[in-house]
Amino acid sequence: MNDPRLSALLATVPGLRLKTGPADLEYYGRDWTRRWVPAPLAIALPADAGEVQAIVRWANRHRVAIAPSGGRTGLSGGAVAANGELVLSLERMNRVLAFDPIDRSLTVQPGIVLEAVHQAARGHGLLYPVDFAARGSCSIGGNIATNAGGIRVIRYGNTREWVAGLKVVTGAGELLDLNRGLVKNASGYDLRHLFIGSEGTLGIVVEATLRLTDPPPPSNVMLLALPSFEVLMQVFAVFRERLQLEAFEFFTDHALRHVLAHGGQAPFGESHPYYVVAEFAAGDDARQAAALAAFEHCLENGLVSDGVISQSDAQAAQLWRLREGITESLARHRPYKNDVSVRISAMPAFLAEAQSLLAREYPHFEVVWFGHIGDGNLHINVLKPDDVDEAGFVSQCAHVTDLLAATLQRHGGSISAEHGIGLVKKPWLDSARSAAEIEVMRGIRHVLDPLGIMNPGKLFDPPVPPGHA
Amino acid sequence: MNDPRLSALLATVPGLRLKTGPADLEYYGRDWTRRWVPAPLAIALPADAGEVQAIVRWANRHRVAIAPSGGRTGLSGGAVAANGELVLSLERMNRVLAFDPIDRSLTVQPGIVLEAVHQAARGHGLLYPVDFAARGSCSIGGNIATNAGGIRVIRYGNTREWVAGLKVVTGAGELLDLNRGLVKNASGYDLRHLFIGSEGTLGIVVEATLRLTDPPPPSNVMLLALPSFEVLMQVFAVFRERLQLEAFEFFTDHALRHVLAHGGQAPFGESHPYYVVAEFAAGDDARQAAALAAFEHCLENGLVSDGVISQSDAQAAQLWRLREGITESLARHRPYKNDVSVRISAMPAFLAEAQSLLAREYPHFEVVWFGHIGDGNLHINVLKPDDVDEAGFVSQCAHVTDLLAATLQRHGGSISAEHGIGLVKKPWLDSARSAAEIEVMRGIRHVLDPLGIMNPGKLFDPPVPPGHA
Repeated sequence: MNDPRLSALLATVPGLRLKTGPADLEYYGRDWTRRWVPAPLAIALPADAGEVQAIVRWANRHRVAIAPSGGRTGLSGGAVAANGELVLSLERMNRVLAFDPIDRSLTVQPGIVLEAVHQAARGHGLLYPVDFAARGSCSIGGNIATNAGGIRVIRYGNTREWVAGLKVVTGAGELLDLNRGLVKNASGYDLRHLFIGSEGTLGIVVEATLRLTDPPPPSNVMLLALPSFEVLMQVFAVFRERLQLEAFEFFTDHALRHVLAHGGQAPFGESHPYYVVAEFAAGDDARQAAALAAFEHCLENGLVSDGVISQSDAQAAQLWRLREGITESLARHRPYKNDVSVRISAMPAFLAEAQSLLAREYPHFEVVWFGHIGDGNLHINVLKPDDVDEAGFVSQCAHVTDLLAATLQRHGGSISAEHGIGLVKKPWLDSARSAAEIEVMRGIRHVLDPLGIMNPGKLFDPPVPPGHA
Repeated sequence: MNDPRLSALLATVPGLRLKTGPADLEYYGRDWTRRWVPAPLAIALPADAGEVQAIVRWANRHRVAIAPSGGRTGLSGGAVAANGELVLSLERMNRVLAFDPIDRSLTVQPGIVLEAVHQAARGHGLLYPVDFAARGSCSIGGNIATNAGGIRVIRYGNTREWVAGLKVVTGAGELLDLNRGLVKNASGYDLRHLFIGSEGTLGIVVEATLRLTDPPPPSNVMLLALPSFEVLMQVFAVFRERLQLEAFEFFTDHALRHVLAHGGQAPFGESHPYYVVAEFAAGDDARQAAALAAFEHCLENGLVSDGVISQSDAQAAQLWRLREGITESLARHRPYKNDVSVRISAMPAFLAEAQSLLAREYPHFEVVWFGHIGDGNLHINVLKPDDVDEAGFVSQCAHVTDLLAATLQRHGGSISAEHGIGLVKKPWLDSARSAAEIEVMRGIRHVLDPLGIMNPGKLFDPPVPPGHA
């Protein structure tokens, strides 16, 4: 707290909660990537938008970098503070501010945890449909900063579709009130959509108005065992054609074995190379019959080897755990993560190439695949063998990511489907975006954050020299 | 064709189709606003994206302003060329380039007419759901430039929701390939959404990949007669609660009388002050019964005075014509148009204030209201009396628009719901967007169009001096 910049901050924002203890610097300075050594200047925990704005203006005067911080569940290093940044944590700004039954909207502060948004919506008989495994710890501000996707995108789209209004403080310290919950508003550039997915490089979300929708229909969950990778897209086509899919998630036997080792319950007597969890609307007999017919069609045509359908909510939750438990079950292996996407139609060709590429390049590493097939999104996790050191492992994986990025580029895909670019994917941004696009992004950043204080070193920025704030 | 700039253009783009005849200059130089005298330099009709790019680069070298041009059905002057602009008409770039059944996407050139997109989608058993009365003449490029809304927004959202990829030529002459049809792509700023609704001030759409969806369920159309303005939102609440609404459109008896004078068929024996056309899913007995129950509930509670439900597709079309015929039936009165929006929840208070404001300010003018109540969008048309001259009429209407804009601002609304700002609403942009937002928009425009050649004088630009190109 002896830093004169922090004294100036406290003089500017009297009563601002600041943390500077070593444990706090470490706790708030990193996200789930664990690859960088946290080294923030301090942690600021503003109470409201006014304090956020005052902090940003102070940061401009003193040229201090700001790392905006939500639940820090990110997997791309977007919230890492390893270079003397001020971490601006939004965890105290975590309230529901308003609900409107006519607009069907929920106005929240950015630090609210996703699950609390789900609960608030449910309390009003409605649904906030974006959902994924980190729901209990990720914050809505972080969801907006990465345009979070998850397991219901096939039915409901990404976070972007559910943001009706945003209040943001720009890097220049201006408070903007974007779109104000309007359904129709053709009054110039939609800056709301510019902020969604900008990874904290343009400013800080201080309030969001979220659209809600009808609760989903009653649903069933089916777990399918697949005999080969090649049939996956055919099974998807059959199910999409015949059912109203709420989710369609794929994982490998490798992935399942990790979950079972963590206490999951084996779904079949024998193991199969690939699995799908499909959730679908099943409120009436006709829909139930259609689901069984789809399954039988696949069985008769050799597209699936076995299957189980949930008979209760508890069983549905049990089947879901086999898919949702994967990330946690892999954590101890410090996996190197790829989160890639292609158009759905490009999946078969891309999958075939990617599979042979990874088999060739990682003969000694275990590779665990899972993903949201219906969105063209695959998660590829490479597990670190215990006898390989971290730096060597990351460097070997980075080499393979070079090859994977080139494959993605040939198939018109993206090196980041839903995790964002942050620090982890920065070396491959140019495989997903052209040089001209990156220049435009840099230009736009300069308009909203002329001194470059917002999350510097991330996304498309040159690296920040160590120790430089 | 003696202009040396045009000779240079033809030298740069051999074979480019150019029109310079007086009838062409007039035809291509204006849109449906009819308030400005067309005075373009020439009309260029490129055949492909390469020609568009070459034209933009030429325009940068010679500092020629470009007015991008689609179907010119706009109502805000966005496509007007009254100051020596080169009109860049996309009418020859009007083909369907690709359909993908797995991605459910249609890739089109920007000059394709909306109705041709509908037909192409239908030909593949799918739906492109954005729809409005100008469907037979407006182009998809223009729809994207204004984020067009229309009559199905309550169910399907605006154009923005249906654009999976965009190829654009920026004002700097760069060809950007934005998002490439991906469902998930968290790789930096989503520039696609920046171009949607930018009214030709950032660049030119040269290709769009549109998402398609399942055809709508069988539906019925109901025409409701309402005893007063005050019950409107209550009727909407009843219908939204009980039915799956595909459209919910409101209009006044004034509006209906103009349509009937144009050959429409009177729906009821007597006239009522207000009407609603509601379209709703009605594929089975349960849904039909729910619709009748909603109607009876409204009748018993004095919310509606009369009603008719379509018994055939032909009758449904007939009921729709009563609403969709309004704009055409008013055209001869050279109406001054306001296209405004508020949050749905703000409608009752806004409507009450707006109604008394207009009654007070326009005692001698006929005011015709209609709109998309379920989206918070109202169209207010003021008819020019035959004995009032155009300039005086516009100036008096502009004065009332000042008052209306202030009312909108108090209710958090927008001076343009779906028509765009263009030239017509430019004086009131600051009622919908803050000074800081407008500065950000200007800064972003400068990044993508550094010399300001794209549609200058529109949206937030200072006026272009007459005769200045």
